Amino acid sequence: MRLALGISYNGQAYQGWQSQLSRQTVQDKLELALGKFTAQRVSTLCAGRTDAGVHGLMQVVHFDTLLERATSSWVRGTNALLPRDIAVEWAQVVPLEFHCRANAISRRYAYIVMESPVRPSVDVGRVGWVFKPLDLGAMQQAVKHLLGEQDFSSFRASACQALSPIKTLRRIDISKRGSYWRFEFEANAFLHHMIRNIMGCLVTVGQGKQTPQWVRHVLLERDRDAAAPTFSPDGLYFLGPCYAPHWGLPDRTPAFDALP
Amino acid sequence: MRLALGISYNGQAYQGWQSQLSRQTVQDKLELALGKFTAQRVSTLCAGRTDAGVHGLMQVVHFDTLLERATSSWVRGTNALLPRDIAVEWAQVVPLEFHCRANAISRRYAYIVMESPVRPSVDVGRVGWVFKPLDLGAMQQAVKHLLGEQDFSSFRASACQALSPIKTLRRIDISKRGSYWRFEFEANAFLHHMIRNIMGCLVTVGQGKQTPQWVRHVLLERDRDAAAPTFSPDGLYFLGPCYAPHWGLPDRTPAFDALP
Repeated sequence: MRLALGISYNGQAYQGWQSQLSRQTVQDKLELALGKFTAQRVSTLCAGRTDAGVHGLMQVVHFDTLLERATSSWVRGTNALLPRDIAVEWAQVVPLEFHCRANAISRRYAYIVMESPVRPSVDVGRVGWVFKPLDLGAMQQAVKHLLGEQDFSSFRASACQALSPIKTLRRIDISKRGSYWRFEFEANAFLHHMIRNIMGCLVTVGQGKQTPQWVRHVLLERDRDAAAPTFSPDGLYFLGPCYAPHWGLPDRTPAFDALP
Repeated sequence: MRLALGISYNGQAYQGWQSQLSRQTVQDKLELALGKFTAQRVSTLCAGRTDAGVHGLMQVVHFDTLLERATSSWVRGTNALLPRDIAVEWAQVVPLEFHCRANAISRRYAYIVMESPVRPSVDVGRVGWVFKPLDLGAMQQAVKHLLGEQDFSSFRASACQALSPIKTLRRIDISKRGSYWRFEFEANAFLHHMIRNIMGCLVTVGQGKQTPQWVRHVLLERDRDAAAPTFSPDGLYFLGPCYAPHWGLPDRTPAFDALP
């Protein structure tokens, strides 16, 4: 039997999603809990790895198991064994041909950034920070140069393992509520650090240090050194993958409603 | 010279506001930073003490000092010496007769509570949690019994040091955004644990375990044993005191905009 789970987590205490020798990652904590629940070793695959400090509103994983339990038992049982900052939001039996990574049509991320003369405190780690006001129009102009199928080599970390630097960026929606900016990204897939590097460039443009056209120049250079510094992981949320409707999987969790 | 400061903090790492021998309180961290900045011992008074785990969006403190600096220097200098989860939002010189506690006309608090079958994870500690849906109409009926000048002995912790159990509760506004309930409280002052005890009763009514009229019964009993258990501090925010306009103090900080 193949099972898919929707996972939410606060990334502040973890060294990212992907399992490491330190065992201080979200995947390690999840597999430890699933191992206890099933009394067997469980290996999961995920829809999108996240960096240290990045949060997940709906990571999706899948794994195969012989254990037959009601999906509500998988949710309750695993949550009782997980740390307080990680939760299984839903569990669903999926066909054996379902693959959480390969079948994802797109991935969505959001950056929440506080614009204020004073750094965050209540929301530390949950929001990014700019003290200089951002220009919405300039950033929206910059976004136009990035949309569509492009070679994103300039926004790719050197450690990136993707086979190709060509990805299709479907949208970057920018809005503001009070002192909080929200940047929402959707692409078929993202390179390592791609969103954090794009975000660094958008903020550079938003603060008037570069023109919107400069982003097109950065893109065409296909060279990481052309772009702005990588933006902080604070305030970055993996909203989750999108699948074709016939898989019948949820597309959001309650925590979406708490984002500014 | 008397200085007033607006302070925001995430309460999760601290044993409440009030200084303790452990030094693991928000007041201790603030006075340590102010002591370093001024190279003198600084003792602060606050507008409203908060429990362990309770957050502050705009605590107000005052203290006297001989050090003359621009208010922007007080903000930047102290913030450089404070932990990441505490910030000075503003500093303002006030007349010597200003007293942050005595001059507060009212205090405001908000509870943010997630309604979901699954416990919080991304927002752990920043939101309370109910898994059984709440009935807005029943809770609003219950609120009517609590408003105005009343003897709140039934909602008072045994350790409460207030001279009188009689307080004036001005409003409790209840709203919902997505999966998140917001309860906003305003009173001239609150007894120790008063909001957490009222919240316990409102949730009891909201989940249909008691009628709205039961809250009136609890109030008239003037006995802590009549009320529901104290609600968790998770999701409770001290929004700050209100002062007469002639003091010219801010009434909110940017973090207000991030509350669901």
